[in-house]
Amino acid sequence: MPDFAEPLARLINEFKRLPGIGQKSAQRIAFHVLRAGREDAEHLARAILDVKDKLGLCAVCNNISDSEICQFCRDPNRDSRVVCVVEEPHNIIGIETTREFNGRYHVLHGALSPLRGIGPESLKIKGLVERIGQGGIEEEIVATNPTVEGEATAVYLARLLKPLGVKVSRIAMGIPVGSDLEFADEVTISKAMEGRREM
Amino acid sequence: MPDFAEPLARLINEFKRLPGIGQKSAQRIAFHVLRAGREDAEHLARAILDVKDKLGLCAVCNNISDSEICQFCRDPNRDSRVVCVVEEPHNIIGIETTREFNGRYHVLHGALSPLRGIGPESLKIKGLVERIGQGGIEEEIVATNPTVEGEATAVYLARLLKPLGVKVSRIAMGIPVGSDLEFADEVTISKAMEGRREM
Repeated sequence: MPDFAEPLARLINEFKRLPGIGQKSAQRIAFHVLRAGREDAEHLARAILDVKDKLGLCAVCNNISDSEICQFCRDPNRDSRVVCVVEEPHNIIGIETTREFNGRYHVLHGALSPLRGIGPESLKIKGLVERIGQGGIEEEIVATNPTVEGEATAVYLARLLKPLGVKVSRIAMGIPVGSDLEFADEVTISKAMEGRREM
Repeated sequence: MPDFAEPLARLINEFKRLPGIGQKSAQRIAFHVLRAGREDAEHLARAILDVKDKLGLCAVCNNISDSEICQFCRDPNRDSRVVCVVEEPHNIIGIETTREFNGRYHVLHGALSPLRGIGPESLKIKGLVERIGQGGIEEEIVATNPTVEGEATAVYLARLLKPLGVKVSRIAMGIPVGSDLEFADEVTISKAMEGRREM
């Protein structure tokens, strides 16, 4: 590594620690910050600290929120009878961009993974059971990832929640829209066949 | 755009303004910062402000430096007779990683571009002429980019500096090592032919 001036080397190292940013990107971004005005740098630094200081978890669904109850749990126009269960807060964004879902959410903050020592007690499952106990929920849509961990979590939740009298459904797995069968792996194709719908 | 909590939306927007970072990367990085400890976030924020507060330009070569004279101009082991002229400070890094060059540098902070209103007076050329006037420099290696602007700058510098009694050379243009002739454009191939060397 060639010698950068110390503050620059430190900034490059800090950027490199962020996901998806390697040495070259970190250098490019650091030089960008260096060229930008001090005010722009301040805004960026301030924004970084503010997410740590001003955000917490929603008391109802565990989504990230700047108030005690998040915007989705607060919104009276959303359907309280349907709750979509996701692994991480950012999964909500993906679902919201579709504009197809108008129910509530519940964030588990992870998925079951015995290998990594993540059992049901490590996830925000207790709150979900309590929400169902309070009544009014008719369906839980389990939108955990289609991975081994996500599937295991879905199966666990189905066994746990069905006896409480709610319908538990799972999002469909299949070929992504706009993709080609040629590029899909056999498990995905088999899931797509299994989940076929009459036209 | 779905609703993020305000501090999170602001951080995502700040990251999106950085080069090479789009919406998805910005979200990923912002969620990473959110999950990281407060201390890590502080280090990042501090590093951003420090590059603005603690760095300036070297009084000799205009490289970015945390002292009045940069490490390359200070180093007594470097050869003062050869000066490599580059467009931007980060170009120095590329050259330093080769470990082939042991001379000094001069940073122009741009390249001539009449279309964008960048003339010789916008570049750090005056200081270069002064350095040559002080004596001791025998060769200027012009390592501006092989673009229209970089070439124009190189031609301009050659005309300006040769009468001062220094040798002015230009880095070689040709096929990148490890690449294939098939993928090279005709201008690059023609430059490679032109710059051929006897074996």
